[in-house]
Amino acid sequence: MKLKIASKILDANERIAQDNKRVFSSMGVYVINLMSSPGAGKTSLLEMTINELDGRLKAGVIEGDITGTDDAARINALGIPVVQINTGSACHLDANMINEVLGDLPLNDLDIVFIENVGNLVCPAEFNVGEDIKTMVLSLPEGDDKPLKYPLMFQESDVLIINKIDLKPFLGVSIEKIKSDALSLNPSIRIFEVSCKTGEGIDEWAKWLHSTLKA
Amino acid sequence: MKLKIASKILDANERIAQDNKRVFSSMGVYVINLMSSPGAGKTSLLEMTINELDGRLKAGVIEGDITGTDDAARINALGIPVVQINTGSACHLDANMINEVLGDLPLNDLDIVFIENVGNLVCPAEFNVGEDIKTMVLSLPEGDDKPLKYPLMFQESDVLIINKIDLKPFLGVSIEKIKSDALSLNPSIRIFEVSCKTGEGIDEWAKWLHSTLKA
Repeated sequence: MKLKIASKILDANERIAQDNKRVFSSMGVYVINLMSSPGAGKTSLLEMTINELDGRLKAGVIEGDITGTDDAARINALGIPVVQINTGSACHLDANMINEVLGDLPLNDLDIVFIENVGNLVCPAEFNVGEDIKTMVLSLPEGDDKPLKYPLMFQESDVLIINKIDLKPFLGVSIEKIKSDALSLNPSIRIFEVSCKTGEGIDEWAKWLHSTLKA
Repeated sequence: MKLKIASKILDANERIAQDNKRVFSSMGVYVINLMSSPGAGKTSLLEMTINELDGRLKAGVIEGDITGTDDAARINALGIPVVQINTGSACHLDANMINEVLGDLPLNDLDIVFIENVGNLVCPAEFNVGEDIKTMVLSLPEGDDKPLKYPLMFQESDVLIINKIDLKPFLGVSIEKIKSDALSLNPSIRIFEVSCKTGEGIDEWAKWLHSTLKA
């Protein structure tokens, strides 16, 4: 009984996600669903990426949070169109939440929309929202055991961004283990190593993004 | 319709949580529901705490993970009774999952059981499992904006353990902001600052735990 309901919810979600994707696509907007644990650095990555892309791609952002507008304020400070969704108690964004804010962004003027999901390494991976790709952030302090403990997120993501690599000297964490375990779960996942504090690696990620959109 | 089902699930969960609590209580076992984001250091905290309590309190552990037995293996290596629950796709432990493993721990011989929840700063806070207290871990690299972004977890927790304080010199994070925001959400929350790497602060937390159980 419970399973039947869950499957209906996921079916409905998938239908709305496809609707969203058609809208984005018809406007020529590329969409990235950005996911991670709380505090892995999604908003910092957006700030760095948007600055790096400045003048090359016009970006907009949809911010998903349980409550509050802190992250939207950070993006707004960059002069970028941003919409904040508060999910209340929901631990992930779903396609319907995105559908309801489609009119709140100037999609006609944008090349790319980043959807920053609620900080959670589990449920967001189950809900498509109409994105072209899923990108996950794993921060180094979270540890190198995360791919095998939260496999669905790594399996569903097209891109893995390993953040906070500036902290590597102070942690007993193996980037190689993260990469090899992620690749064993998902051989086609593309991996970038960055520090949103020092800026290391951001150029490479932004260059890849730029070339992907132009392709 | 959706809301009605959710409330029924939470009602059923609460009933089973009370059953669990009666069982634990009748065996003289104190129970801690341990929650955090992925990689905040729950298992490391358990390792340090169990070592610190050695000879004073007899501990057992219930490990909750989406998949795998890594954490249970780490606890098992300490010679402590441990049961691993794999939740599959569920992003939190519920009371029924705990109920099903009650017979797998030698409760009669134990003083304290730690229930390590799935790494998630959202949903675990909604589900009582039969614990005496909820303890959350926030690691410093997650940032000082977490109390206001994930308020329910801070409101529901009796204890907040701020972990990875050894990384403070390398992070632009204010411990004072974490503490004041947590206290504004939950004035009675008890806060400890620890490093599971250097061991700093573990004695104070263990001493508090010991005195709480003996009270």
